[in-house]
Amino acid sequence: MERNFLLTIEYDGSEFSGWQKQPDARTVQGELEKVLSKVCNGTVELNGTSRTDAGVHALGQRASFKGEYGIPTDKLMLVANNHLCGGKHLASVIGDVRIVAVEEKPLDFHARFDSKGKKYRYIIQNSPEINLFRRKHCYQVTTPLDFEAMKEAARYIVGTHDFACFQSAGGQPRATTVRTVYSLELDKQGDDIILEIAGDGFLYNMVRIITGTLVEVGLGKITPEQIEEIIASGKRENAGHRAPAEGLYLVEVYYE
Amino acid sequence: MERNFLLTIEYDGSEFSGWQKQPDARTVQGELEKVLSKVCNGTVELNGTSRTDAGVHALGQRASFKGEYGIPTDKLMLVANNHLCGGKHLASVIGDVRIVAVEEKPLDFHARFDSKGKKYRYIIQNSPEINLFRRKHCYQVTTPLDFEAMKEAARYIVGTHDFACFQSAGGQPRATTVRTVYSLELDKQGDDIILEIAGDGFLYNMVRIITGTLVEVGLGKITPEQIEEIIASGKRENAGHRAPAEGLYLVEVYYE
Repeated sequence: MERNFLLTIEYDGSEFSGWQKQPDARTVQGELEKVLSKVCNGTVELNGTSRTDAGVHALGQRASFKGEYGIPTDKLMLVANNHLCGGKHLASVIGDVRIVAVEEKPLDFHARFDSKGKKYRYIIQNSPEINLFRRKHCYQVTTPLDFEAMKEAARYIVGTHDFACFQSAGGQPRATTVRTVYSLELDKQGDDIILEIAGDGFLYNMVRIITGTLVEVGLGKITPEQIEEIIASGKRENAGHRAPAEGLYLVEVYYE
Repeated sequence: MERNFLLTIEYDGSEFSGWQKQPDARTVQGELEKVLSKVCNGTVELNGTSRTDAGVHALGQRASFKGEYGIPTDKLMLVANNHLCGGKHLASVIGDVRIVAVEEKPLDFHARFDSKGKKYRYIIQNSPEINLFRRKHCYQVTTPLDFEAMKEAARYIVGTHDFACFQSAGGQPRATTVRTVYSLELDKQGDDIILEIAGDGFLYNMVRIITGTLVEVGLGKITPEQIEEIIASGKRENAGHRAPAEGLYLVEVYYE
């Protein structure tokens, strides 16, 4: 009998060429499909919710796959995770991707098409000192940022807007560039500025360009009020730089 | 005129096959010599104080080199660090090794032979939850450790002893296995247990085997009092396991 599995996946994107399968590169989808096909003894094809770029991390990526597999869901997770660590039963061997939950869904469920939105986190380290041990896990800005100005600017982004200005060229063509940002919160934790953004969908590189634009607000290059004009212009060149992939984490995918 | 430079070097050991130069592997010494030879316009050969293993990190490795170079010390550091980041002037491009200080020394100074001791740090994450983002930077022990027992055990290690029991096979032959441990401190920071050990010198893998032995004390497999017998036995098989390289940091090298 055919079953439909929904996985929740965590990964450190540092050593992956992104989510999406590619013939000659190590990708999250590629690694997972290889292992799941072995565990399920059949060709598994994953539908992921977010095609994260190279270097981008995930705490709660979701992906579904269907097949006539008899394996219990908890065993699927255990065996797959063991393979993902190279099959070594040592506390010191920790892989860079693992499945954190498996559930069964009705056959008509699709991880991407049925998702109602996502939450991303972006970590900026704002300290004069570079920390080379964190180089793969945050964006290190050494000039002091005006946190209050960044928070003020963020308020102009929340809501339903045409976000064409925050979209990189090269993504998949979309019917519309209108999206709804449910919330955009900035928090200070020590030297870190943590940005959390939730919305019904995101354009290509949208979170990274929003972050880069907020960093430029923090540097005084853009005023908070200008965000409104930038969005209205619909022009990528009016927005700020694209913040690096290293600081970005896909935190959660929302379903009904 | 010949000059003698002493470098202080920081690196994330994750992507290096250790300190020592090898023909077909990326090593810290190899990378630094390549860059310094370019910067100094001559063949630089470094004398490092500690041959850290693959995966081991350093905050304050020291290395010296001599040559008839005219470059000012501050410029040497700046230009070398720029090369070590791939020459890209971007905040987001952070290399995994950098020079943090350069000083000039008398010609008869030698970074290794003149060192009077070293301090290492070892980071254990003691939490039931594996954090895959920290897999290259600490040792993750998921079973609760008895911190007080570990601290008590540490007291038996401080002082001058024959530490043959804490030495791996395969190191360089040494005239004696007697060493003096000046201090061995354990500190709890959130879920982390931070071990700091200072001594006049360390045998091959000594800090990692001491850490593994203390972890076994924390797990109740070895009692604190047994440490005395283990040291007296001089036998490697009586000590605990060798903790993984990922948790180890060379913090400081002492000179007169």
